[in-house]
Amino acid sequence: MKLLLISNSTNAGEPYLKYPMPRIDEFLGSVREVVFVPYAGITFSYAEYEAKVQARFAEYGIKVRSVHRSKDPRRMIREAQAICVGGGNTFALTKKMQEQGLLKAILGKIKAGTPYIGWSAGSNVCCPTICTTNDMPIVEPESFKAIGAVKFQINPHYLDANPEGHAGETREQRILEYITANPRRYVVGLREGCMLHYENGKLELIGSRPMRIFKKGIAPYEVKAGDDLSFLL
Amino acid sequence: MKLLLISNSTNAGEPYLKYPMPRIDEFLGSVREVVFVPYAGITFSYAEYEAKVQARFAEYGIKVRSVHRSKDPRRMIREAQAICVGGGNTFALTKKMQEQGLLKAILGKIKAGTPYIGWSAGSNVCCPTICTTNDMPIVEPESFKAIGAVKFQINPHYLDANPEGHAGETREQRILEYITANPRRYVVGLREGCMLHYENGKLELIGSRPMRIFKKGIAPYEVKAGDDLSFLL
Repeated sequence: MKLLLISNSTNAGEPYLKYPMPRIDEFLGSVREVVFVPYAGITFSYAEYEAKVQARFAEYGIKVRSVHRSKDPRRMIREAQAICVGGGNTFALTKKMQEQGLLKAILGKIKAGTPYIGWSAGSNVCCPTICTTNDMPIVEPESFKAIGAVKFQINPHYLDANPEGHAGETREQRILEYITANPRRYVVGLREGCMLHYENGKLELIGSRPMRIFKKGIAPYEVKAGDDLSFLL
Repeated sequence: MKLLLISNSTNAGEPYLKYPMPRIDEFLGSVREVVFVPYAGITFSYAEYEAKVQARFAEYGIKVRSVHRSKDPRRMIREAQAICVGGGNTFALTKKMQEQGLLKAILGKIKAGTPYIGWSAGSNVCCPTICTTNDMPIVEPESFKAIGAVKFQINPHYLDANPEGHAGETREQRILEYITANPRRYVVGLREGCMLHYENGKLELIGSRPMRIFKKGIAPYEVKAGDDLSFLL
């Protein structure tokens, strides 16, 4: 398996997909073409989403072909040299991937060694379920089951505090609810600007900020780049 | 129908359920006993949730009886003088209410004139679906369908901005995704400290902050207490 699971496409105030591109480029190695899944995009067209990603990837000589253009998206996945799933709304993404049978197809490819890149919703769908997304359930997928390439759950865009004066649940409170209801599962709170890289049987955190680990019965704690993450595998 | 749909139990820095209690008391009139649905509570027991709500309601001489104590929760609902659904996790709440057949039972009671009070998740489940919740989908309900006593969707704890430096979607962006996917539905962004009161065929906003209105094809706009809300009915 080769996975690059990115918290967020873009850091506040930076150009779109700017910060993760050197890592994406390095991760892909000699592969210069990715099959792109744009189904998390809602308020803009799939073609616009493809074009936006293509514009950035083109700076590195990488071609982007979106599955929405094909009558047989599953075949595009099967024949892909690399797979890239973009962020947006996780529920809409999952629903469409389930309808088109892409979750299973992608899992098969990942197991066969095809590189997978996801950011935000695209990282969430690589987990066993979408149960740790931050997104609004704007449409109802067949189920919350996702690709399941890893055994743990990612919470992308992890953040520590609410805006001042806001009384809604913090992200930590939400994840504590998740582990209460799902006591066997690890959740990793992946802060913005960070990503997880899995290759050659090894999982590593990339980024200057620590990642927060949650599991039922264990006090939440932080790990940083370089720390051993084998407990998640 | 008599509904009191409250954004949040508690404002930041205030005691639990402090701000809405005078309105809850007034809304209930001569009714001094409510049947309570505690199923949105996750990280504490249903008994603890009942006790916490009872402690506050007792200050107004109102008795709280939670459905979790009964072998026949539906019957408790059918015989209720008033129904109160507390906040917490909307997915867990909906799942358990669906399993116990409470959604339909409550809709029947609401239509028969029984007062309904909800806050946060308890306001969300009064809508057609739970599709505008802010909560994490920690468990999977049978479906996203909810009580449907009103025709519009509430987004409780509505807030305007992200914490500084955070790049995740704002609440407005999330709701714009919802109305793109669900173009016929109004969404109201109900800010903390505010509530909606429906009685005698009239809907009114209570609270010092405006409410934000979203519908596909209309630029989002604000309404304030006293404004005509009949377009939502």
